[in-house]
Amino acid sequence: MKSAVILLSGGLDSSTLLHYVKSKFAFQPLHALTIRYGQKHARETTCAAAQARAAGVEAHQQIDLAFFGKMMAAASTLTDPDRPVPALAELPPGQLDQPPTYVPNRNMLFLALAAAYAEARGIADVFYGAQLQDRYGYWDCTVEFLDRMNAVLGLNRRQPIVLHAPFMTMHKSEILKIGMDLGVDYAATWSCYRGQDKPCGVCPSCVERRTAFEALQVADPLTGGISR
Amino acid sequence: MKSAVILLSGGLDSSTLLHYVKSKFAFQPLHALTIRYGQKHARETTCAAAQARAAGVEAHQQIDLAFFGKMMAAASTLTDPDRPVPALAELPPGQLDQPPTYVPNRNMLFLALAAAYAEARGIADVFYGAQLQDRYGYWDCTVEFLDRMNAVLGLNRRQPIVLHAPFMTMHKSEILKIGMDLGVDYAATWSCYRGQDKPCGVCPSCVERRTAFEALQVADPLTGGISR
Repeated sequence: MKSAVILLSGGLDSSTLLHYVKSKFAFQPLHALTIRYGQKHARETTCAAAQARAAGVEAHQQIDLAFFGKMMAAASTLTDPDRPVPALAELPPGQLDQPPTYVPNRNMLFLALAAAYAEARGIADVFYGAQLQDRYGYWDCTVEFLDRMNAVLGLNRRQPIVLHAPFMTMHKSEILKIGMDLGVDYAATWSCYRGQDKPCGVCPSCVERRTAFEALQVADPLTGGISR
Repeated sequence: MKSAVILLSGGLDSSTLLHYVKSKFAFQPLHALTIRYGQKHARETTCAAAQARAAGVEAHQQIDLAFFGKMMAAASTLTDPDRPVPALAELPPGQLDQPPTYVPNRNMLFLALAAAYAEARGIADVFYGAQLQDRYGYWDCTVEFLDRMNAVLGLNRRQPIVLHAPFMTMHKSEILKIGMDLGVDYAATWSCYRGQDKPCGVCPSCVERRTAFEALQVADPLTGGISR
């Protein structure tokens, strides 16, 4: 059986991706990688462990890159202890294509690690949960980014890794629909960038999540309602 | 003044690169990154610190990725505690294009980290010491690899990082010549893959180094002679 590696943050998208890959393809065993990179909170990673258990992942590895958050520090509101994560409504209009929640080159770093992990184990396929953002964007969540990363990895002379992001051109509501049909437990996912006791409801990630649940007219088990 | 980041292992190539970049360009300040990745020995990193001091590097950061060596383990003789680094003469002829000393996707990982470090500091230029190997090779030390990595990074919407590898098409003797002219102290560099008290003299990296010194008819201060 062919195996696969999935980058699993414990958010809505990567949690859905895990169950999607498990149900749609015959990969066996499944490997999940969860990377703490020094973001302000790591609530997601607890969810990642729960999702990995629920999906019967054979190998779930957590990687600690705490130094990376310190190295990025002020460059992103996800790592800067002195700067709050802005509400979606507060994002500067001129920065929607690379907002303050962007972490410099994080996705290339994660994919490079996942590809190395896969290659060392003779695994050819790596999945990550990039999705289409409606109101802002990140260059390292685009089809061009994925294609060019695969162009690099394709040069490997023994084990060219192929990166897959099947949700890359989907809106979050489409991803949620897939996950609802698969029975994903969204109470065990975490999306909020701020990481307080409850989702803040206003950060870019909370708004996207709420919009998705509202589009499907389903209650979000984390907040108990379809709207705040 | 524009700044730059240099990946500095403390080997012959990256040490020369540091002094070359310092002398040839007007970057100021210079940042050097030294990454321990769980290779069997870290003699190089002591040399990296000495070279950074000698070049007057303003910011020298050492990064510890010890977990990476464990994650790679048996996939490379540079990280596998149970498998010796082969002599150059022992490399399987059919594996010279990706020999047992290759570490899966290590260079993409290092460059992703260096690019993130640079981007977070508003630095556009990253240098690494890839060079032409005469008798074996690595896909992630090629011009195609560099070009495709730059094609990825060029998608960044604010701060596209440019990777440079000015020694990529040079033989080690050419690099050594540049360094000799610049007065690089090669006693404070380390090339041997095996990391015993003295260079083993037979591993691929030792043989390349000796060949370079012999080509210039210069004594290697580490071994005291131009041949073993």
